Amino acid sequence: MSATPTPTQFDLSGYLALQGERVQAALERLIPAETVEPAVIHRAMRYSLFAGGKRVRPILAIAAAEALGETSDVVLAPACALEMVHTYSLIHDDLPALDNDDLRRGRPTNHKVFGDAMAILAGDALSTIAFQVVAQAEGLSVEQRLALVEELSVASGTVGGMIGGQVHDLEGEKQAPTAELLHRIHRAKTGALLRASVRFGAIAAGKLAASEEHAALSRYGEAVGLAFQIVDDLLDIESTPEQLGKTPGKDAAQHKITFPAVYGVEASRRMAGEQLQAAHAAVAPFGERAAALRAIADLIVHRNS
Amino acid sequence: MSATPTPTQFDLSGYLALQGERVQAALERLIPAETVEPAVIHRAMRYSLFAGGKRVRPILAIAAAEALGETSDVVLAPACALEMVHTYSLIHDDLPALDNDDLRRGRPTNHKVFGDAMAILAGDALSTIAFQVVAQAEGLSVEQRLALVEELSVASGTVGGMIGGQVHDLEGEKQAPTAELLHRIHRAKTGALLRASVRFGAIAAGKLAASEEHAALSRYGEAVGLAFQIVDDLLDIESTPEQLGKTPGKDAAQHKITFPAVYGVEASRRMAGEQLQAAHAAVAPFGERAAALRAIADLIVHRNS
Repeated sequence: MSATPTPTQFDLSGYLALQGERVQAALERLIPAETVEPAVIHRAMRYSLFAGGKRVRPILAIAAAEALGETSDVVLAPACALEMVHTYSLIHDDLPALDNDDLRRGRPTNHKVFGDAMAILAGDALSTIAFQVVAQAEGLSVEQRLALVEELSVASGTVGGMIGGQVHDLEGEKQAPTAELLHRIHRAKTGALLRASVRFGAIAAGKLAASEEHAALSRYGEAVGLAFQIVDDLLDIESTPEQLGKTPGKDAAQHKITFPAVYGVEASRRMAGEQLQAAHAAVAPFGERAAALRAIADLIVHRNS
Repeated sequence: MSATPTPTQFDLSGYLALQGERVQAALERLIPAETVEPAVIHRAMRYSLFAGGKRVRPILAIAAAEALGETSDVVLAPACALEMVHTYSLIHDDLPALDNDDLRRGRPTNHKVFGDAMAILAGDALSTIAFQVVAQAEGLSVEQRLALVEELSVASGTVGGMIGGQVHDLEGEKQAPTAELLHRIHRAKTGALLRASVRFGAIAAGKLAASEEHAALSRYGEAVGLAFQIVDDLLDIESTPEQLGKTPGKDAAQHKITFPAVYGVEASRRMAGEQLQAAHAAVAPFGERAAALRAIADLIVHRNS
């Protein structure tokens, strides 16, 4: 059955290292150097962008394009734009007015180093440059670039997108933790940008509009997004600060609505496993070309940080 | 001489009222209603967007398109995107971490009403939806929409754009107030988006790339942008809170670098007048079609709030 993970010899750590380097080099090229004025904002943007992130979203975009046979560099700049948007959301999320986090990926958060004002502006700037990077992406048609702008703006917006999810999350602290609210938060807050990531790959590979490939990758993105959030919630309960690179236990302290809080730990683990199966099933038609997508889904569910 | 303002019977207040209503109606349509979930962020976005702003940037875009003979509704959505970006910058600027303003256009600032967290997210959301609005603008070609995305992202970015200007402004408080620094701040902080506004009109009217019309409108935009900032600085010295709708005297209190501080009040007034002449000269070739652009330049220099 296609829903069963197929055994594979795929070298995921080699793949992640290689693609991570490609993303790193592209980000280096796309973000103004620390010597470009006003230097302090470029330092602040780079501080968080080059803080050891796992590049999940760019690598999902690259692997999705690959599943459709597109292995050239055309997907790289759009993939980096996803990382810029993700990073801006982390910088703003960590601010004292929001989650008030001092530690991110084992280092002081952006505002602890550059101050609240610069952290706000660095987030704004990463959001803004993401659209410039997509609009100017080389090797893609005008139609493709415009489709990427639209996808990115909707996925990071208020209606079912990332910002909307953050708002639901903030509001959720004041509400009863129902399953419905939980799913609405996750689908928007982390799910939308993860789904956009695989769709970025589809668009860069020439599958702009409604097609079976685009739909299959969207299903994969949704399953992986849900699994990602469930595991994130579980890690917040079960990890040490050293493993996690940030302060664990904050969800409970802030009365965040989480999968373990609503379903319990065991059922949450089971749900993550089910989503992993669904992700595998969605990309089964792509065969060996989807080896990376399958391995990434496995890693997302079985990671420990 | 074309540099001399020509006498005109142009009914500016009627024009501003009419265009202001068109912009208002378009903004109403483009921003999710207060009933759309998550409702609170749409309330926060609308609170600042419908706070009695003068719609300078959208009306500049409309008037610039008109100078090129484009009077249809195609420019409206892009024009509104400019107002969204301007409004997001005001919301973030007013935050305690930045200018810490309690009053804007005679009303409590966004964070005083919705809290700092929601104000940060409302600003993020207005920035994000601006790109969606431009990408989905009806009646424009794919090329035009993409050119608008590019123009907007660069004009609001860090290198010579709005965010860069804000950073220079923050940093400027710690530096000697030189003429060079002053011009660098203004060109980026307010100048870039004002110039983008007239260029939006040019692009919506079909003048995407380098053309004499595009260049002439850019010159107009630069002159009007400089005049706008000089007058803004003068008003901060000379106005009452009632006139200004915000707290005057904050520039001096915050050691901001301003035109009156660098050049003195009289020379600043003279410079504003020279820029007005330059604006008129730039649009002289458009004849009667540029009547609105001329009258807006006059108003920007002679306003008292």
